[in-house]
Amino acid sequence: MTAETRPERYAYLGPRGTFTEAALLSVPGAADAEQVPYATVPAVLDALRRGDADAAVVALENSVEGSVPTTLDELATGEPLQVIGEIHLPVTFALLVRPGTAIEDIKSVASHPIAQPQCRRWLADTVPHAEWHAATSNAEAAQRVADGHYDAALAGSFAAARYGLTVLAEEISDIADAVTRFVVLRRPCAPPEPTGTDRTTVVAFIGEDHPGALLEILTEFSVRGINLTLIQSRPTGAGLGSYLFWMDFEGHVRDARVGEALMGLRRICADVRYVGSYPRADRVRPDIRRGTHDDDYTQAAAWLTSIGGTPPAV
Amino acid sequence: MTAETRPERYAYLGPRGTFTEAALLSVPGAADAEQVPYATVPAVLDALRRGDADAAVVALENSVEGSVPTTLDELATGEPLQVIGEIHLPVTFALLVRPGTAIEDIKSVASHPIAQPQCRRWLADTVPHAEWHAATSNAEAAQRVADGHYDAALAGSFAAARYGLTVLAEEISDIADAVTRFVVLRRPCAPPEPTGTDRTTVVAFIGEDHPGALLEILTEFSVRGINLTLIQSRPTGAGLGSYLFWMDFEGHVRDARVGEALMGLRRICADVRYVGSYPRADRVRPDIRRGTHDDDYTQAAAWLTSIGGTPPAV
Amino acid sequence: MTAETRPERYAYLGPRGTFTEAALLSVPGAADAEQVPYATVPAVLDALRRGDADAAVVALENSVEGSVPTTLDELATGEPLQVIGEIHLPVTFALLVRPGTAIEDIKSVASHPIAQPQCRRWLADTVPHAEWHAATSNAEAAQRVADGHYDAALAGSFAAARYGLTVLAEEISDIADAVTRFVVLRRPCAPPEPTGTDRTTVVAFIGEDHPGALLEILTEFSVRGINLTLIQSRPTGAGLGSYLFWMDFEGHVRDARVGEALMGLRRICADVRYVGSYPRADRVRPDIRRGTHDDDYTQAAAWLTSIGGTPPAV
Amino acid sequence: MTAETRPERYAYLGPRGTFTEAALLSVPGAADAEQVPYATVPAVLDALRRGDADAAVVALENSVEGSVPTTLDELATGEPLQVIGEIHLPVTFALLVRPGTAIEDIKSVASHPIAQPQCRRWLADTVPHAEWHAATSNAEAAQRVADGHYDAALAGSFAAARYGLTVLAEEISDIADAVTRFVVLRRPCAPPEPTGTDRTTVVAFIGEDHPGALLEILTEFSVRGINLTLIQSRPTGAGLGSYLFWMDFEGHVRDARVGEALMGLRRICADVRYVGSYPRADRVRPDIRRGTHDDDYTQAAAWLTSIGGTPPAV
Repeated sequence: MTAETRPERYAYLGPRGTFTEAALLSVPGAADAEQVPYATVPAVLDALRRGDADAAVVALENSVEGSVPTTLDELATGEPLQVIGEIHLPVTFALLVRPGTAIEDIKSVASHPIAQPQCRRWLADTVPHAEWHAATSNAEAAQRVADGHYDAALAGSFAAARYGLTVLAEEISDIADAVTRFVVLRRPCAPPEPTGTDRTTVVAFIGEDHPGALLEILTEFSVRGINLTLIQSRPTGAGLGSYLFWMDFEGHVRDARVGEALMGLRRICADVRYVGSYPRADRVRPDIRRGTHDDDYTQAAAWLTSIGGTPPAV
Repeated sequence: MTAETRPERYAYLGPRGTFTEAALLSVPGAADAEQVPYATVPAVLDALRRGDADAAVVALENSVEGSVPTTLDELATGEPLQVIGEIHLPVTFALLVRPGTAIEDIKSVASHPIAQPQCRRWLADTVPHAEWHAATSNAEAAQRVADGHYDAALAGSFAAARYGLTVLAEEISDIADAVTRFVVLRRPCAPPEPTGTDRTTVVAFIGEDHPGALLEILTEFSVRGINLTLIQSRPTGAGLGSYLFWMDFEGHVRDARVGEALMGLRRICADVRYVGSYPRADRVRPDIRRGTHDDDYTQAAAWLTSIGGTPPAV
Repeated sequence: MTAETRPERYAYLGPRGTFTEAALLSVPGAADAEQVPYATVPAVLDALRRGDADAAVVALENSVEGSVPTTLDELATGEPLQVIGEIHLPVTFALLVRPGTAIEDIKSVASHPIAQPQCRRWLADTVPHAEWHAATSNAEAAQRVADGHYDAALAGSFAAARYGLTVLAEEISDIADAVTRFVVLRRPCAPPEPTGTDRTTVVAFIGEDHPGALLEILTEFSVRGINLTLIQSRPTGAGLGSYLFWMDFEGHVRDARVGEALMGLRRICADVRYVGSYPRADRVRPDIRRGTHDDDYTQAAAWLTSIGGTPPAV
Repeated sequence: MTAETRPERYAYLGPRGTFTEAALLSVPGAADAEQVPYATVPAVLDALRRGDADAAVVALENSVEGSVPTTLDELATGEPLQVIGEIHLPVTFALLVRPGTAIEDIKSVASHPIAQPQCRRWLADTVPHAEWHAATSNAEAAQRVADGHYDAALAGSFAAARYGLTVLAEEISDIADAVTRFVVLRRPCAPPEPTGTDRTTVVAFIGEDHPGALLEILTEFSVRGINLTLIQSRPTGAGLGSYLFWMDFEGHVRDARVGEALMGLRRICADVRYVGSYPRADRVRPDIRRGTHDDDYTQAAAWLTSIGGTPPAV
């Protein structure tokens, strides 16, 4: 199976009405496929792993709240899955209430914990006396407003219709231009073709007792002019100070400079997990540094061969 | 005020019965001081900022779940606070129930979201049909068991007595040797005296459009032989790809190599926030690299002066 | 004594009529001072060391032949001397003969060994059957033509008058725009004031068994944005593979970035010899990198002090 | 032709009786081949280039005097030649005189300029009033003693018999353990098989206006754990500040880490000339850094292929 085969069934972090569903629906063809919501990120990924779905969509990072630890941890370990695409979704919240509820009636507001800090100031100004409650998702928050458990929910405005709620306020966000980045996942497959504006994701595991390792890793990228777009350390669970590094960077696994850098990581790290090469949603084109184009590699390899050397190959 | 002045009143992430309270009580003298629980990390830090407390204790990172984003974000921005000490607390959970509840009665389990993944496998094996619910803290989970809302709570065993609950199981953790690192905070003050086994924390803000900046920052440390013990990127809120870096590293602000590295960060970063120098809880002694002892700096500065140069100073 | 005191007596590599004398005469005030020629570079430097001269001029490098090993070795070891200025002199040769000698009469050509390769092709074309002979200097070559020992000499055209010779050809050089760089030396003194277009020279001695040392040294410069203009390795005499590095770089010992880099060298090298800071003859202005101006250092030091640190100083 | 084919005719820097001849005679099989002396290094190399000889031996560097500029410059430019082996020859001098000459009779001493500084102190102590004269080679110096032109010559003691001279003193050297390194050259050919203790030589040409280039070049080596054993800058003739770098380093062109580093140089430099891979005379075995063995490259390339990437190859 390649990344280009159209999935028949998508798993996503539900319930219906979440931003993840909105992201999923923006994927070409997804609206015509079956969409199956799951309660947790691990549940979404396990559904994909065992074949209950052909593809999955989960949130990876948010411009306000940072990366989503569960997504990172679940993709860094367990049966490998592969990112084949990404979606950038502007995130603003609506305040959803049961029809008839006025601002002054609101004693409780529910939302996913990730929504709360993005609306903290707005909540403090607008409903200063309301108590905030955590929900597993913004959609669940909406549902619990619908069933009378809470008075209001912070959620996407698209969730109102689904739960029979009314939008009391829109475009709520303390921070302008908040964006969430979602990834489209499949079981391991050939990556999408290079587009010239690609991103690659890997997870590097550092052996113990090797404090300069991060610098070594970054040098493998910098020496080939490859820019990182995200680096995130996560504990491996083996004690304070033992980390893995999630890294997103410019380029495609089939670019020569990326291939050589990945080989470098593989050689110096305890382990490297390739998570995927895929087109960037923002289509930012990388500056390819002098001497690191595919042509430069091809010419250098030909020269090396001409002097009796052997380019590192299989 | 210096770091050595004994605080009269500590703020901490409550309610009573949390791991944070257990960490706080391990601080010399804290048991005799007033201990004031607050509902959220921002509330704890604001109490310290406005003088309602003289010191505060909050969790910074956990060997399983990673750093605590709220703590990082709140210390990286707003009115500066200073870390003057740290506490490493082994974290294992107990399953707390109302007296009389048996394992097979448990339909719902509550805990802080951070506890859930550390006990996921144990829960799946032991109470496979129980639904998990998020609570603001493990202590709140215990309280909501006490008031009949949920059947069981994952919390520290020390919380049982406080809430009139019974310990059904102890030492629950999917992962052995889980540790949480807490920090002791004060308003800005002179740092504790160097002990030879110190840690320093800073937050570096990178100017926009400068992708090699992380490598530059790490080079300022590596060129002086300084090991990082934690590096964590966090979004600044200014859009995907705009980060600040929280960095913990070996050494004290008064070590010459650390001072010079900090000056280097300050010169190349858009901004640097000093968060504190303080004794390491694990008392790990750094390998000081050839040429980077204080004596090496003193001799080099004397030599530079002898040839007509001026050591960079105020 | 400072670099600004006008010398009364200059030592230089003679005899009269050499390019060195021409370089010396271009130094402001030197024409009015006593000029004492010496037979070898060591003799020139020893005259300065023991006070028989107040200043000295010797060649350091040539754009065709490279650095002058004797000058480098003699300045790198022995009693320290200091470069206080430099002179760039375009170098073209004239073919000097006794009056009456024609091209076809020339069976032998003498010159300093450094002149021969710069005129090799011209000699092969013009006097293909003449044998080349080494002389201690071009002026000595001229003298030996004058005394009938050889038929022709390659020397500066200014040497013709002094030795009663005739110029048969001028502007001889296989390579266009050949330049020799001379240095003005004094006994150790305060350096000339910074001009904004300065050069500094040091010699770094690397401890044994430390193969990555050159990279470490270059990193001390690059991390502060300092460009090297010359790097030359020379054996220390302690066996193949044991080197010292002569380095010329942009900036003045009183620039903060240079001072800090020099301290870095001093800390990591077995030894460092400061050879001088002086105005560049070509007045090339350095690009000072973001974060490495003196102001950046002053502000960073003030900040470091404000957080309880101590800038590395005497 | 491969490096293993036995040459029938060797060119070397003559005349007979030089250290170069002694080095040549130490090459296995060379004593049975024809040995043709030439007057200059360029003449030796041109003889090899045009096929008048099958191999050549010239000096490359000396532990006291440093590299031999002519050898470096001639091999860095012109029709390529290839180093296929090296010889380390201890260098001590003998004082050769005509039979009957006593120490007190010596008014003049001749030698190659490279010999003089190595015996300066000994000469000053033993024949303080003798004048030193330059000769094109130590053997020529001996010859000119034989023909009565000078009183004594510094040369290898093996030159005495050849010129009918007597050894007045032996083992003359101010510096203990002086060694000269000679190289065996052929026209371009397949390199000798790797031995595990090999050296490789390249010349890197840096494009103009790129001051950080040397650091970039050294990083290509350091990132793969390759130690340089000699780095020598030489002017390209294009003006002060324009250099090429002669570099000797550990490893063989067929080692994967060396191949990848050479490709790196080729990609980032204006030009790279491969000068040869050959067994080290001192048989020093390199420390191969973790992750840079051939096996590491093979495994990394296989992994890269498995994830859809393409190892940089022809």
